Amino acid sequence: MCELLGMSANVATDICFSFSGLVKRGGETGVHKDGWGIAFYEGKGYRSFHDPVASANSEVAKFIQHYSIKSTQVICHIRKANRGRVCLENTHPFSRELWGQVWSFAHNGQLKGIKNKPLKRYLPVGTTDSEYAFCWILDRLSEKFPTKPNGTAQLRKVIEETFRELATHGVFNVLMGDANHLYSYCSTKLSWLTRRAPFEQARLVDAEMSVDFQQETSKTDVVTVIATQPLTSNENWTTMANGEFSIFLRGKKHVTSLA
Amino acid sequence: MCELLGMSANVATDICFSFSGLVKRGGETGVHKDGWGIAFYEGKGYRSFHDPVASANSEVAKFIQHYSIKSTQVICHIRKANRGRVCLENTHPFSRELWGQVWSFAHNGQLKGIKNKPLKRYLPVGTTDSEYAFCWILDRLSEKFPTKPNGTAQLRKVIEETFRELATHGVFNVLMGDANHLYSYCSTKLSWLTRRAPFEQARLVDAEMSVDFQQETSKTDVVTVIATQPLTSNENWTTMANGEFSIFLRGKKHVTSLA
Repeated sequence: MCELLGMSANVATDICFSFSGLVKRGGETGVHKDGWGIAFYEGKGYRSFHDPVASANSEVAKFIQHYSIKSTQVICHIRKANRGRVCLENTHPFSRELWGQVWSFAHNGQLKGIKNKPLKRYLPVGTTDSEYAFCWILDRLSEKFPTKPNGTAQLRKVIEETFRELATHGVFNVLMGDANHLYSYCSTKLSWLTRRAPFEQARLVDAEMSVDFQQETSKTDVVTVIATQPLTSNENWTTMANGEFSIFLRGKKHVTSLA
Repeated sequence: MCELLGMSANVATDICFSFSGLVKRGGETGVHKDGWGIAFYEGKGYRSFHDPVASANSEVAKFIQHYSIKSTQVICHIRKANRGRVCLENTHPFSRELWGQVWSFAHNGQLKGIKNKPLKRYLPVGTTDSEYAFCWILDRLSEKFPTKPNGTAQLRKVIEETFRELATHGVFNVLMGDANHLYSYCSTKLSWLTRRAPFEQARLVDAEMSVDFQQETSKTDVVTVIATQPLTSNENWTTMANGEFSIFLRGKKHVTSLA
């Protein structure tokens, strides 16, 4: 399986601290050593960093741990290969453009029979179940909404239905983003935590490292972090229910729906 | 205007040396300080690094200069903004998936009236003429060839026609890649150079730096570098003709066609 990390914030925020914990699980405190990737949204802009080597030993990961990229939304993934060999094109997050926005996607789990679903407009570059599922999601969105829908209610409904359908194929813990919304689905494991004033100190589970967020933030900052497993040992993470679909927007949990 | 750098090689090769010269032109030896980007193909895999700051001062660029990423095809761009503000989404190379391949595109020039052309499937995320033109190219390719064409002759013909049509809108110096082919068009300035055995020493124009390629290569390596302006002072660069469309494949110039 794999591990996921997401962030949604109301102000451009770096993820160096959380990322420093996660990368250890890629070959040091965890077995997820088959490549990794991280995607940052900066306004409408999007950039991602990918490496097919273990994150715990990756030079690119070391760079990202120490270089502060400020972003309002982040999706990160470290991989333990199940379907699809270890190579660059099989590293998550995957990304595609739809309606002039970059959509990105990272997945934990396996989806039995997913490749029997026909694809049209979006095709996978690599060989993972996950990228295939992402292409199928975007095919469906672009078919239902040939142009960007007004308002978000309709879109949200279709995304939720699509996620629930995919979850019937196996394990589907997912983070998917456009430039504003972070869509999540918990099939078996996802936890989240919102940090806001008064900020306190946080201590990583996977590394001897702590940070005093009071020194790093301003009073109005609201930042939510989502992960397959809690990254800090002294904060109150909320475990999502199996079958929970949630949307995070500007740092806060915005919508939640249970099956 | 902007500056372009491309590489095509028959063996995975790093571009640290050429890139070290180019980045100087982003704020030090040149005025192209409005962001930059570089894209690497590794097999079918693709990864890119983008930064909206001047390449001469960019921490990401420093990392790329010293971290050897081996690739058979590279496209790099440093930007002097004309159309479209300075921001991440306006940095080249742009990329999109078509037929399960990642296509990438970097452009030097301005294209008058380009935004009057209608777009369908591919839409720009940023506001540059260049990304708009790229979307229009891929729209046309996906319309002419709903699935990946067998053989390359037909595809090559359509790409050449499309490039020539775009060149009537203004200045169109371009590098466009799929995972194998590097397509180029010279509207006003592009030069290229093929390095092969016996390898010699090369000296950068923009930095006090030279490299002895004999130490870095094996006898069968063939590597072509393409740039808007020659990057080295002691090698014989070939200047492309205005209106020249060329394709590079596995390190060699593969096809050339003049208007």
